[in-house]
Amino acid sequence: MSARRQPVEYSEATPEVREIYDDIMATRKTDWVNNFWKVLAHDPRTLRRIWTNIKEVMGPGTLDPLTKELLYLAVSASNGCRYCIASHGAAARNKGMTEAQYSELLAIVGLVNETNRLVIALDVAVDPQFL
Amino acid sequence: MSARRQPVEYSEATPEVREIYDDIMATRKTDWVNNFWKVLAHDPRTLRRIWTNIKEVMGPGTLDPLTKELLYLAVSASNGCRYCIASHGAAARNKGMTEAQYSELLAIVGLVNETNRLVIALDVAVDPQFL
Amino acid sequence: MSARRQPVEYSEATPEVREIYDDIMATRKTDWVNNFWKVLAHDPRTLRRIWTNIKEVMGPGTLDPLTKELLYLAVSASNGCRYCIASHGAAARNKGMTEAQYSELLAIVGLVNETNRLVIALDVAVDPQFL
Amino acid sequence: MSARRQPVEYSEATPEVREIYDDIMATRKTDWVNNFWKVLAHDPRTLRRIWTNIKEVMGPGTLDPLTKELLYLAVSASNGCRYCIASHGAAARNKGMTEAQYSELLAIVGLVNETNRLVIALDVAVDPQFL
Amino acid sequence: MSARRQPVEYSEATPEVREIYDDIMATRKTDWVNNFWKVLAHDPRTLRRIWTNIKEVMGPGTLDPLTKELLYLAVSASNGCRYCIASHGAAARNKGMTEAQYSELLAIVGLVNETNRLVIALDVAVDPQFL
Amino acid sequence: MSARRQPVEYSEATPEVREIYDDIMATRKTDWVNNFWKVLAHDPRTLRRIWTNIKEVMGPGTLDPLTKELLYLAVSASNGCRYCIASHGAAARNKGMTEAQYSELLAIVGLVNETNRLVIALDVAVDPQFL
Repeated sequence: MSARRQPVEYSEATPEVREIYDDIMATRKTDWVNNFWKVLAHDPRTLRRIWTNIKEVMGPGTLDPLTKELLYLAVSASNGCRYCIASHGAAARNKGMTEAQYSELLAIVGLVNETNRLVIALDVAVDPQFL
Repeated sequence: MSARRQPVEYSEATPEVREIYDDIMATRKTDWVNNFWKVLAHDPRTLRRIWTNIKEVMGPGTLDPLTKELLYLAVSASNGCRYCIASHGAAARNKGMTEAQYSELLAIVGLVNETNRLVIALDVAVDPQFL
Repeated sequence: MSARRQPVEYSEATPEVREIYDDIMATRKTDWVNNFWKVLAHDPRTLRRIWTNIKEVMGPGTLDPLTKELLYLAVSASNGCRYCIASHGAAARNKGMTEAQYSELLAIVGLVNETNRLVIALDVAVDPQFL
Repeated sequence: MSARRQPVEYSEATPEVREIYDDIMATRKTDWVNNFWKVLAHDPRTLRRIWTNIKEVMGPGTLDPLTKELLYLAVSASNGCRYCIASHGAAARNKGMTEAQYSELLAIVGLVNETNRLVIALDVAVDPQFL
Repeated sequence: MSARRQPVEYSEATPEVREIYDDIMATRKTDWVNNFWKVLAHDPRTLRRIWTNIKEVMGPGTLDPLTKELLYLAVSASNGCRYCIASHGAAARNKGMTEAQYSELLAIVGLVNETNRLVIALDVAVDPQFL
Repeated sequence: MSARRQPVEYSEATPEVREIYDDIMATRKTDWVNNFWKVLAHDPRTLRRIWTNIKEVMGPGTLDPLTKELLYLAVSASNGCRYCIASHGAAARNKGMTEAQYSELLAIVGLVNETNRLVIALDVAVDPQFL
């Protein structure tokens, strides 16, 4: 059996899974569910847990919705998760991210990974002003 | 010899290094230079190169300055660079980040690292809608 | 030349390589050798070294064989190594891992990656009770 | 302000936070709460969310409790989270992990990180038998 | 829109981008430009910045050119960047890397990732002799 | 019990462990053993296995000894293993690495981590010339 699980389509999903799919679509105001959720649906408990987390963490708060998507996208780019970059890149564009902003985000992600290595290798002491 | 290099203080720095320290303080409107730059100063070419990069990438662009600091901080938190979290946490607070926003940022960073692993391990196919 | 090396098939392998292939099949009670070993076979010294290590580390010890495969699989999932997830997922299923257990393993891998980032970013002090 | 937040002690905690502390102690049958939760307590929503996740993911399931702790510990060791290794090392020892088992676990974690790099760099094709 | 951007070919590039392409080909004494630069060309500022950095860091210095390519390749292999392994593997072969040397490099990369995890998990104290 | 194990000193070591300590000192032409080995000595099987691996991989081959130490150091710097940077930094200096070469190595490590993220996020296609 492969590492890749088949997505569970709406038509073949259990009522419990359909209820979560419905909530995903209602929350996001879309008429489809992306593969991440359909693949998690083999394990309804994890599907419900992760969706509950995403809804709480990515929902209304003190940071605006576009900034939150940019943060999600930046960490995904740093981690090299191709699917996550595609899906959260789309979400960020839906919330207004321009191509110039995306380029700027990637420039930051790249640079942080460079400077982080220099700081760690040189074992820089935290300045008292930061404490 | 240790992994930790002593910071090069302004008073002992060469004119070339002082010029960069001056530019860092002028650009940031502060009267001190943090240890990262003072440690890089043992290698003036890298000091100049990294400062030029930071100034360009973190300078004016299409994302606002606070959002850029949040992105820097988020990737540093994901990478576990303690000095970087301290220094860019301070920079983000200077640009207006509240503690509630910082908590929200960390919640996103944590959650992305969780979902990234699920996506990669389950080898989720990119939905055609994202292409 | 590409990053991908062609697998060395049994029929074209040197006696030294065949001897290791034979030991892999005998140890695992299978009649085929998976691509990882066939690709390493271009460098017989590394082939022998890694096989000797795997045999020792994954062989009989104080942890039961299924637990050892689950640990191997969990770290591979955390690292995002697709081939490793496929091959050690198969090995774990052969040793009795159910799909429900695999889902549970992935839920743990995801969650650890979330909490590790929170702990590192918040620089939590180790409790004296743990020392 | 430093990257390190002061732990919120029980005596100074809000009723909402105390309720979670009480649940942590009751679930774990201990009379103290470790620093991770006390540091998260500055942000009660995240405290509640992460505790709910940990309780669900690490609670009763199809894998036995010691195996779950070993998986948690292995991924934390792979990620290099010192606090997480200390706290989940203690938890695993409480559930019966011996020093010999811990050594065996670390040998696996190290070896997986070695073989994962070889597999990724050599871009090994997934064998059809694994699909 | 996908995560994958189309490469900008020379014939469709702006004069600013062509100037950088020309410099890349002149510096490398080749008559073509690889996809990394053509993809960065959507964002000419980043194209120029990264090329300037690569030219400075990978140009003449105190380490010989082959050693520098081997370092680049080793870190890319450790990070699992497939394109980077392909492109810098080709560059290293052009500068004289043999297949036996590549195997030896990968053996080191794998082993470092093993020992690094053991060191971090066991929290080994730095010997005073190293300080 | 803490994550940190006490080093096993020569005077308290078993004959089996002493034999390995003796081989480490003879191979390295030194009169002391560093903490990594003393900490591994709690698990003599792993001590022997890792030492055998290091001796084989870092011993004579087709890459010169300094280049091998530089590769070891570069991947350790990229991984952020403080002990490994200190110990292999010392080893590289013993084999002739200058401070200027170390600065150059770190500049490469930092830059690779930057460009790797750009390549992965932009999902650059491997050029046919590299295949």
